[in-house]
Amino acid sequence: MSVSLADSTAATSTSARDFPAVFLRVAPHMARLDAFLREQVALFEPEIREMADYCIDTTGKRIRPALVFFAGWSDGPPSDDLVRVAAVVELVHLATLVHDDIMDEAEVRRGRLTASRRYGPAAAVLLGDALFAHALYLAARFPTTEVCAAVSESTRRVCAGEIVQTLRRRTTAITRADYDRVIDLKTAELFRVSCSLGAKFGGYGENFANAAAVFGRHLGIAYQIYDDLADFFGREQRIGKTLGTDLASGKLTLPLFALRAKLSPSERAELESELEGRLSAQFALRREQMERLDIFPEVVAEIECELAKGEAALSAYAGVAAVAHLAALSAVLRAQVAALR
Amino acid sequence: MSVSLADSTAATSTSARDFPAVFLRVAPHMARLDAFLREQVALFEPEIREMADYCIDTTGKRIRPALVFFAGWSDGPPSDDLVRVAAVVELVHLATLVHDDIMDEAEVRRGRLTASRRYGPAAAVLLGDALFAHALYLAARFPTTEVCAAVSESTRRVCAGEIVQTLRRRTTAITRADYDRVIDLKTAELFRVSCSLGAKFGGYGENFANAAAVFGRHLGIAYQIYDDLADFFGREQRIGKTLGTDLASGKLTLPLFALRAKLSPSERAELESELEGRLSAQFALRREQMERLDIFPEVVAEIECELAKGEAALSAYAGVAAVAHLAALSAVLRAQVAALR
Repeated sequence: MSVSLADSTAATSTSARDFPAVFLRVAPHMARLDAFLREQVALFEPEIREMADYCIDTTGKRIRPALVFFAGWSDGPPSDDLVRVAAVVELVHLATLVHDDIMDEAEVRRGRLTASRRYGPAAAVLLGDALFAHALYLAARFPTTEVCAAVSESTRRVCAGEIVQTLRRRTTAITRADYDRVIDLKTAELFRVSCSLGAKFGGYGENFANAAAVFGRHLGIAYQIYDDLADFFGREQRIGKTLGTDLASGKLTLPLFALRAKLSPSERAELESELEGRLSAQFALRREQMERLDIFPEVVAEIECELAKGEAALSAYAGVAAVAHLAALSAVLRAQVAALR
Repeated sequence: MSVSLADSTAATSTSARDFPAVFLRVAPHMARLDAFLREQVALFEPEIREMADYCIDTTGKRIRPALVFFAGWSDGPPSDDLVRVAAVVELVHLATLVHDDIMDEAEVRRGRLTASRRYGPAAAVLLGDALFAHALYLAARFPTTEVCAAVSESTRRVCAGEIVQTLRRRTTAITRADYDRVIDLKTAELFRVSCSLGAKFGGYGENFANAAAVFGRHLGIAYQIYDDLADFFGREQRIGKTLGTDLASGKLTLPLFALRAKLSPSERAELESELEGRLSAQFALRREQMERLDIFPEVVAEIECELAKGEAALSAYAGVAAVAHLAALSAVLRAQVAALR
């Protein structure tokens, strides 16, 4: 088990020194979650249990479950409800990863073959569907429809964000508002609902749950911007993936927006040709330009801005146990950003 | 709007003479359903509304909604709940079609480009996910979690059946029990849950709902066997699709099981080589052998057997309005089977 806002626990970055002590306290929660997820495998039809087991990978980052547990924090072991909420959001996330890896034709994730590579893309489409269906099945085990409603609506929004991003690849007629909207949908939405449901099932009231939801949303935006920044400034061994994939696949992210704005018209046209696939991607050049034109601090300022908005949403609840735990997640993300330099 | 157990309403077979008069009575229900489905488009994120609208095709067969309305039949307009249940099962079905068409690399469905062909397979994976998520979102609008639970569990089972079928393509070490299990999961499950939920939300009691579920399951099995038979004995213009696709894609269906059992060892080895892709499919030969070895009546007997089991489940409810309507669906399937000759 590990909780990290880094991109891969397989990387060497997840040493204990990266983590505030508060993270050690969530270890028993994560162990409970892992055991619960393992139990779920037996509920799948016998023919697909081995495949479900393969996809229900418990070595991942578990960011969304951490948000559930932290937003619903109380000392002592987590309630069964909180563990189930954590499982629901993690299963939805795992389902989206299975489908993402098909679309990206990814071969390896976390050091293992992707489901698409192992079982073929056709089976992987259906396997992702089955994981998502099981998430909703667990959501329907609550006494009310609240979890089903929240998770299904969030999932539709996550899909909408990913669809838009997919259709915009290799196009450059995109505004900053378009980018903001996509990351709000594809990443911030599930962070938001994790915090909201965590707070509610942790026994906190409606007002705090709403504040936690705002925090989660901004943390999610900040996290996605960090992820996009790491694609240019990370060290491959540390973040556990190849750099430059956004540029190579024609995905116009915030660092590229910032760079584009600072280039001359002719340089800008060349960058756009790379993104549109008419020229080969020049990663080393773009990285060097980003250094020279101070793109890094500009993007970090945006991350800070989102984290500040998130923290502000919780400012009225300074004494609440959950708040210190959620704030620790902001601290971890700041440390990860700092580690890029 | 049309209700048919035929494979395509685009085909010329869906003339009024094929339908018992009872089908005309469901027309206003289907109109309500279509209007309701159209309204749903506005609930999708603006960026994907046009795509959702494209996928929410109201020209389809609407078999599962028909089961909902018939199992929950009462004279007069259907309740909002019944319309919503019908929309949920239809959206789940439409989501699976979007994903099926990606896996089969299908270009056209019902005379239009498939979503995969129109928006690309990557967007289509996500679009199917969004449709499914919206189905569960509607399911969560009921006062209890019953619809969410039933539909999410059914969906997982449908996916399990399709995964097994996908992984078994081009393999011939398959028993009849394996085939039965796959069609029970991939087709009968959603028929079953449509009848069960239709009866419940039509105000019928638990016992009748269970009987209707058994009927739906057997109708679903019978329908899938018919569909597999039509792949050899249909007329292309009538069933609206290319014949011989199961043989060509290495899918061992009931007509092929029956044929294999009647071939000599050397002939059987040749058929298995075709299914395994080591020899080109010989559709004309297989069709001729099926004629000569009386495979058609043998398979029809299996369809009859399933329909009889389904009708038997309803025999204790002879006076119930829903029963006459459900029985009409058996009659339609029998007519479709007869029309293959």
